[in-house]
Amino acid sequence: MEITRPFDLLNSVMNQPVLVRLKGNKQLRGILKAFDQHMNLVLDEADELENDEVKTKLGKVIVRGDNILYVSP
Amino acid sequence: MEITRPFDLLNSVMNQPVLVRLKGNKQLRGILKAFDQHMNLVLDEADELENDEVKTKLGKVIVRGDNILYVSP
Amino acid sequence: MEITRPFDLLNSVMNQPVLVRLKGNKQLRGILKAFDQHMNLVLDEADELENDEVKTKLGKVIVRGDNILYVSP
Amino acid sequence: MEITRPFDLLNSVMNQPVLVRLKGNKQLRGILKAFDQHMNLVLDEADELENDEVKTKLGKVIVRGDNILYVSP
Amino acid sequence: MEITRPFDLLNSVMNQPVLVRLKGNKQLRGILKAFDQHMNLVLDEADELENDEVKTKLGKVIVRGDNILYVSP
Amino acid sequence: MEITRPFDLLNSVMNQPVLVRLKGNKQLRGILKAFDQHMNLVLDEADELENDEVKTKLGKVIVRGDNILYVSP
Amino acid sequence: MEITRPFDLLNSVMNQPVLVRLKGNKQLRGILKAFDQHMNLVLDEADELENDEVKTKLGKVIVRGDNILYVSP
Repeated sequence: MEITRPFDLLNSVMNQPVLVRLKGNKQLRGILKAFDQHMNLVLDEADELENDEVKTKLGKVIVRGDNILYVSP
Repeated sequence: MEITRPFDLLNSVMNQPVLVRLKGNKQLRGILKAFDQHMNLVLDEADELENDEVKTKLGKVIVRGDNILYVSP
Repeated sequence: MEITRPFDLLNSVMNQPVLVRLKGNKQLRGILKAFDQHMNLVLDEADELENDEVKTKLGKVIVRGDNILYVSP
Repeated sequence: MEITRPFDLLNSVMNQPVLVRLKGNKQLRGILKAFDQHMNLVLDEADELENDEVKTKLGKVIVRGDNILYVSP
Repeated sequence: MEITRPFDLLNSVMNQPVLVRLKGNKQLRGILKAFDQHMNLVLDEADELENDEVKTKLGKVIVRGDNILYVSP
Repeated sequence: MEITRPFDLLNSVMNQPVLVRLKGNKQLRGILKAFDQHMNLVLDEADELENDEVKTKLGKVIVRGDNILYVSP
Repeated sequence: MEITRPFDLLNSVMNQPVLVRLKGNKQLRGILKAFDQHMNLVLDEADELENDEVKTKLGKVIVRGDNILYVSP
């Protein structure tokens, strides 16, 4: 798939696992189920990570776009 | 329920327990009673947690959306 | 009273005591006298708390909504 | 005077002394001479305080509303 | 001069020395040469101060309004 | 290529390697594949760096513009 | 040149060296090649400084205006 705008990347990884880095050294990992133009995300089967290890099993989660540093499939 | 936009997740968990993580390592747990398009929330039977233990019993609380990192049912 | 939008909670506790948690570990307690759509508040008989003890007696105070984490009646 | 909106409180204390708490543990005290809808303030005979003692005599000062936590007459 | 709005104070001290306190414990001192409605400022003969002593001589400087705590003539 | 507006620089380095410095001492390096007017970026073959060494291989990544300090080709 | 608005200063130093101080104690030095109304800048022959010494040679760089404290020619 051709990526011409940044949000095309999110579109191209729907229903696939992504890593989300938040401000304050927090990381979430889960399956991308939805996003909007503010970069608010819904992840399923999500875990919060600490030093690359699972800290908390969250299941579904809505992540506020404001506090996202990056999202990587 | 099908989640197509992030706020659909909030809609699908009305009157159910959610975990809310705020900036500055704060966590609230309570029953979701209302939300708006800024992600401002009302929780009922809410507790503030510290290291996964109850620190303060709050009862009802209005949470400002700006400072939310994520909400997980 | 039925709460259908977050600000309904503020409306339902006018002239009643509330606890306000601000960014930077500050807490105020006082009687809610007014609020607006930015969550700016006026409290009366307000105290600033530190570790749940009164640190400063403020009397009337206008609190800027931007820096509020949550308000609890 | 009846306070029905938060800014009514500022209006009611024009030309009277106020305490202003800013982000980053700064405090100013002075006579309120002007304000606008962003909560930008002008104080006269203003002092910056540290641990409730005068640290710097400022005289007139314009305070940016964005960084205000609260204003108390 | 009568101050009725906060920016009147800036207008009244054009071409006069001002002290500018920024977020993050930075202070600038210089002659106010220009400002706009975002509180962006131009100072001339400006110095950056640390603990009230001159740390860096800057000459002319444009200061971003967003990060200003207060300006005092 | 003539640079007359800041975003012209991003346009001129499409499909070339860039260094991105984020708030909180984070750095990413990768091939610029897309950007928008909020400075949201897509990088390919991206690495997160720590002290100029590769810390995490990310592959594709969407970087939120809000938290970018600078981008250098 | 007469400076009547803050951005006039940037206009008057195009193609000249400037010092840019960012949030978080970062400093850049380089030749100003472009700017826009958000204070986004393009510098050429840019260096990142630490304690007034060159830490990283960047060459061209686009600097996000949001995180600028001041720019000094």
